[in-house]
Amino acid sequence: MTYTLILLRHGESDWNQKNLFTGWVDVDLTEKGRAEAARGGVMLDEAGLLPDVVHTSVLRRAITTANIALDACNRHWIPVRRNWRLNERHYGALQGLDKAATREKYGDEQFMLWRRSFDTPPPPIEKGSEFDQSGDPRYAGVDVPLTECLKDVIPRMMPYWENEIQADLRDGKVVLVTAHGNSLRALVKHLDGISDDDIAGLNIPTGMPLVYELDEDFMPTGPGRYLDPEAAAEAAAAVANQGKK
Amino acid sequence: MTYTLILLRHGESDWNQKNLFTGWVDVDLTEKGRAEAARGGVMLDEAGLLPDVVHTSVLRRAITTANIALDACNRHWIPVRRNWRLNERHYGALQGLDKAATREKYGDEQFMLWRRSFDTPPPPIEKGSEFDQSGDPRYAGVDVPLTECLKDVIPRMMPYWENEIQADLRDGKVVLVTAHGNSLRALVKHLDGISDDDIAGLNIPTGMPLVYELDEDFMPTGPGRYLDPEAAAEAAAAVANQGKK
Repeated sequence: MTYTLILLRHGESDWNQKNLFTGWVDVDLTEKGRAEAARGGVMLDEAGLLPDVVHTSVLRRAITTANIALDACNRHWIPVRRNWRLNERHYGALQGLDKAATREKYGDEQFMLWRRSFDTPPPPIEKGSEFDQSGDPRYAGVDVPLTECLKDVIPRMMPYWENEIQADLRDGKVVLVTAHGNSLRALVKHLDGISDDDIAGLNIPTGMPLVYELDEDFMPTGPGRYLDPEAAAEAAAAVANQGKK
Repeated sequence: MTYTLILLRHGESDWNQKNLFTGWVDVDLTEKGRAEAARGGVMLDEAGLLPDVVHTSVLRRAITTANIALDACNRHWIPVRRNWRLNERHYGALQGLDKAATREKYGDEQFMLWRRSFDTPPPPIEKGSEFDQSGDPRYAGVDVPLTECLKDVIPRMMPYWENEIQADLRDGKVVLVTAHGNSLRALVKHLDGISDDDIAGLNIPTGMPLVYELDEDFMPTGPGRYLDPEAAAEAAAAVANQGKK
């Protein structure tokens, strides 16, 4: 008995396109992002990998990606579950800032520490500032973070993996998780046993379904596979180059 | 203590536009239908009537209407529940047929009996024919009807109203139900105590939020109100004229 898990990172958002740090800011997909989502759904359809249930974050870019991808593979009718624990990592005071300008202002080293180090969070967002989400009704009862590094994402994401996603897998459902670069990196780090040092080098491309077969302990029976490996490698390289001029 | 229920009929679909009987056939919205859905969401936003949970059928035109409307009022992140019991009534062997041609072939009287009578179902769909949905995975375990009149919709819709929708209302949630002309007529018939004879005259316009305040027995404290009553009256008249040349 194996379980099937499909991970899908949302397509290009308005702020990806503008090269701004986004985090928990609830921006929309671009037309390109919508096309990526549809293409992801077509790839699932062509591979015969049809989700029985979908889990998303509570952010528009992941929700819309799931809606479009599921519509494209004729699975728009499956049950939907959403949780803030699948959100992108909170980018603290960097939310809304230009990536290239931030790189220039703080230097390559500090920039890469904030973007890719395991345990260096950006400066915290100021309460009540433009992109502070602590009053948003979708986070009622949630202790909204003021900033997060990848190390902070793991303990808030993992309970959702263990309690909610594994429950659907245990029921024999093919599970689609539509989320974000860093919530998915946290999950892949766990699944593939990637060290705190090596996770810096992992980039997950947008709109490319990544499929795992899992054993009864919900650990992979082999490497995760992209449905279009060549396109995924190209796209991952492009992600790694963000913030370069 | 009152409860708030919002009903929303999906916007124009491909087959509305082509004037074909649709029923359970899973057609998409037109661009006009998408615009109607967005406008419905904007009306909710402007009225400050923000849903806490959404219930939809398992048909694309209702699901997409809900997705677009919720996105437009910034409630894309709320919990979603879907059930076949909210589906349009099954139009039997008429599914896929042109409304005007059917009217011409069978005459005004038979046509109006099939469309608007309470208890005259169209001829049943033939098993295995083009638009038979009995093998569709979304209906696994469901005794898929072969045809339905409005009288048939009531006993399959009402348990969902009583068990699932009322449960969310009881929790104090503002509930949005995004569904179809006839599943919503069945619910409005119950809420407004409309007789079997008089329900023939009730047309629910597309894309217009219809709001009820309900008492502790889940019955209306007053008439349902459209957020834009004038536009709703015009749209209902247009629905009543379908099938006329």
